[in-house]
Amino acid sequence: MAIYTESLQKLIDNFSKLPGIGMRTAERLALFVINMEQKDVKNLATSIWEAKKNAKHCKICNNFSEKEICDICKSPNRDRKTICVVEHPKDVIAIEKSASFKGLYHVLMGAISPIDGVGPKDLAIDKLIKRLKKEDIKELIIATNSDIEGETTALYLKKVTAGLNIKTTRIASGIPMGSQIEYTDQATLAKALEGRHGFE
Amino acid sequence: MAIYTESLQKLIDNFSKLPGIGMRTAERLALFVINMEQKDVKNLATSIWEAKKNAKHCKICNNFSEKEICDICKSPNRDRKTICVVEHPKDVIAIEKSASFKGLYHVLMGAISPIDGVGPKDLAIDKLIKRLKKEDIKELIIATNSDIEGETTALYLKKVTAGLNIKTTRIASGIPMGSQIEYTDQATLAKALEGRHGFE
Repeated sequence: MAIYTESLQKLIDNFSKLPGIGMRTAERLALFVINMEQKDVKNLATSIWEAKKNAKHCKICNNFSEKEICDICKSPNRDRKTICVVEHPKDVIAIEKSASFKGLYHVLMGAISPIDGVGPKDLAIDKLIKRLKKEDIKELIIATNSDIEGETTALYLKKVTAGLNIKTTRIASGIPMGSQIEYTDQATLAKALEGRHGFE
Repeated sequence: MAIYTESLQKLIDNFSKLPGIGMRTAERLALFVINMEQKDVKNLATSIWEAKKNAKHCKICNNFSEKEICDICKSPNRDRKTICVVEHPKDVIAIEKSASFKGLYHVLMGAISPIDGVGPKDLAIDKLIKRLKKEDIKELIIATNSDIEGETTALYLKKVTAGLNIKTTRIASGIPMGSQIEYTDQATLAKALEGRHGFE
């Protein structure tokens, strides 16, 4: 005999497909949902569907946008001479939260990864080159991840933008703020030492 | 400038209302959802709404059921002479998972709690008495929680069923399996000692 009703089981199965949600949490969430007010349940279901439906990308930079051009690309308050290149829209969110960058973005929609069959042509690199040629850009900050794919992509970008007379920079690698030397892995320590700078 | 698009922010807000889901997890879930296949997102949203819509209760025992009478009440394989009284449908689920009970259930839909203004009339107690008078029941197992409300409800049930010539039992309280005396709270230890039984 099934312990859950059919709809409840289906909901539990669907919840458990989400990241970090195991069977137990999925069960707890499902039981919570069916005890919620009807209008709140409707809101939740609708917002899931709407978020997916409206998840479009900016025509210029590929960032998430519900309109054709995202708020950042349209904003008159951003430094339009600097482009920060990232792999995914969620990287834009992370950098925006740090409130430490006021320029424009360019989202590649991935990173070069031969193992996964992702080459430069699968990313928005041509689109970036076109932007660099058309817009008046002074600095290109490469903020791809510091893993193999991200580093490969960074090197590739450096190469293909070499002739454009634009300053290319790479975000710093090093010890995360608040962490201790003792517990820092060797590769990070090596990078941190390599990237040492004058201490004023 | 908003970091998230409007739909994404709405989804994050709705996710963060779920139990155990903080802001960070809600963000991660929302970003995951908009990267899911369209059909999976539709499945998820639909299953949430359907589970709520179909969350009906069995006419006999109040357990969750998509039909008028639940599978347990209808089953020819259950012991129809024993009723286990619980507070909530989720208690039925927990007991069914333990696979240690083969009788019928009766869900009170709460427990007596004067502080919350819940009295015996607000629970399915009259309905239980009617069942006990009509059906041929030999044993009534009271499996309300072992907190103040559950104990109060258990005592009340014992009182109102006293004249019906039905054996009334209460589930045992004691040390949880796998746990250690050293770390067991005093009230539980007292209950465990009080409830000691012949060791054969």
